[in-house]
Amino acid sequence: MNKEEYLHDGERIDDLQRNGLYIIQNPEKFCFGMDAVLLSGFAAEHLGKGKKNILDLCSGGGIIPLLLSAKTDVGHITGIELQEDMADMAGRSVKLNGLGSVIEILENDLRKAAGVIPAASFDAVTVNPPYFKSGHGIINPDDAKTIARHEVSCTLEDVLETACYALKEGGVFYMVHKPQRLSDIICSMRQSKLEPKTLKTVHPRKDAEPSMILIEGRKGGGSELRIEKPLIIYGEDGKYTKEMYTIYGY
Amino acid sequence: MNKEEYLHDGERIDDLQRNGLYIIQNPEKFCFGMDAVLLSGFAAEHLGKGKKNILDLCSGGGIIPLLLSAKTDVGHITGIELQEDMADMAGRSVKLNGLGSVIEILENDLRKAAGVIPAASFDAVTVNPPYFKSGHGIINPDDAKTIARHEVSCTLEDVLETACYALKEGGVFYMVHKPQRLSDIICSMRQSKLEPKTLKTVHPRKDAEPSMILIEGRKGGGSELRIEKPLIIYGEDGKYTKEMYTIYGY
Repeated sequence: MNKEEYLHDGERIDDLQRNGLYIIQNPEKFCFGMDAVLLSGFAAEHLGKGKKNILDLCSGGGIIPLLLSAKTDVGHITGIELQEDMADMAGRSVKLNGLGSVIEILENDLRKAAGVIPAASFDAVTVNPPYFKSGHGIINPDDAKTIARHEVSCTLEDVLETACYALKEGGVFYMVHKPQRLSDIICSMRQSKLEPKTLKTVHPRKDAEPSMILIEGRKGGGSELRIEKPLIIYGEDGKYTKEMYTIYGY
Repeated sequence: MNKEEYLHDGERIDDLQRNGLYIIQNPEKFCFGMDAVLLSGFAAEHLGKGKKNILDLCSGGGIIPLLLSAKTDVGHITGIELQEDMADMAGRSVKLNGLGSVIEILENDLRKAAGVIPAASFDAVTVNPPYFKSGHGIINPDDAKTIARHEVSCTLEDVLETACYALKEGGVFYMVHKPQRLSDIICSMRQSKLEPKTLKTVHPRKDAEPSMILIEGRKGGGSELRIEKPLIIYGEDGKYTKEMYTIYGY
């Protein structure tokens, strides 16, 4: 089957430049960003060796499952995505890459995950969730980009409760988020028994405030947190730093 | 009166190299470290202009009140110190510097602060508290260095409750602590209605994990946190960075 036969109107195929992987995207809906790449790199670095059963929440077009399939000794990855068209597109990306035996995409509301996945059955959960609190001024709460960015369809607490439900005791949780939400994140993770274990701040330049944070939690873990050295995106020459090239896999 | 007349056995006078200030210290008990200097710099930077009524908890030999008197438009500073000999030494340092009208040292258990200071009366609270949880293996819980470093005489929660009691609504709180306690700090600050507002990580070198954190909270503040750019202690030449020279005031 020709690659283009997997495409619907308005979609395109992007080369992930990693293990010959491709992803189908629709710029009118939502395209993955650097945050997804950083999350997959952070999770891969901390997961270590050995086959894992991984769950990806808010899976969108399936970018995290696709990248993790290339970066880790993955056993199996389940992606949950609420939006029908996004889940469908992710499913076609999985087929396009011939990864049907490794990645399964479920179209489901993560708040109802108990209906589709067994409790305490995953080694790891990843999530690139909506960053912003839902408030006044949201013009179109049904828009794909709004759902991806604002907590209209699930809150941070919903994500963490589902992660805790899905993880085995001692299982690990990886999330990318915004620095301004750090207190919400840490307090809510504790509330959901996902103890924060590692924090990494991501800075556009070495003398700038962080624009993103990466956090690792452990279900039932002890209370000590490790803050890693900062990840800097651009060097003084305006190009990606060595660490970024490693994460992108060039 | 000659400077030496303020000294007791085993004590010495150290030049703070700032506004002609001196401090009496006893190396057998506890000498201030870089953490105290960083805390005073962080508080001074965020306090802004205008006379403030400041409370310093776990005041030790009075280093924070002394440095704040030089670095801010301070109105008045009250230092609370549990240990009789440390409080006495701090009081003599205040007199030695002729700062009796600006700084008052109270020998008191901060858990009983309600008996000596009025509620909701301070604009700011500073604290360089014991960093380590009290556990097994503490050889001598009455030792001055143990009390300064381990939570044998007051816990993080005690410190935060007293800070909340003492602060006016909207008043600010500044603390230096260890990175591994960040989750405890953020959750306990929220519990005590001191919402974390600013976090700064302090790194020995630019490619190292942080060795200290500085945190600002606001009594009754909203839930957004700002993570500042990291503070690096030593440059690649092994000397203090420009930021460190500014904080030390050379």
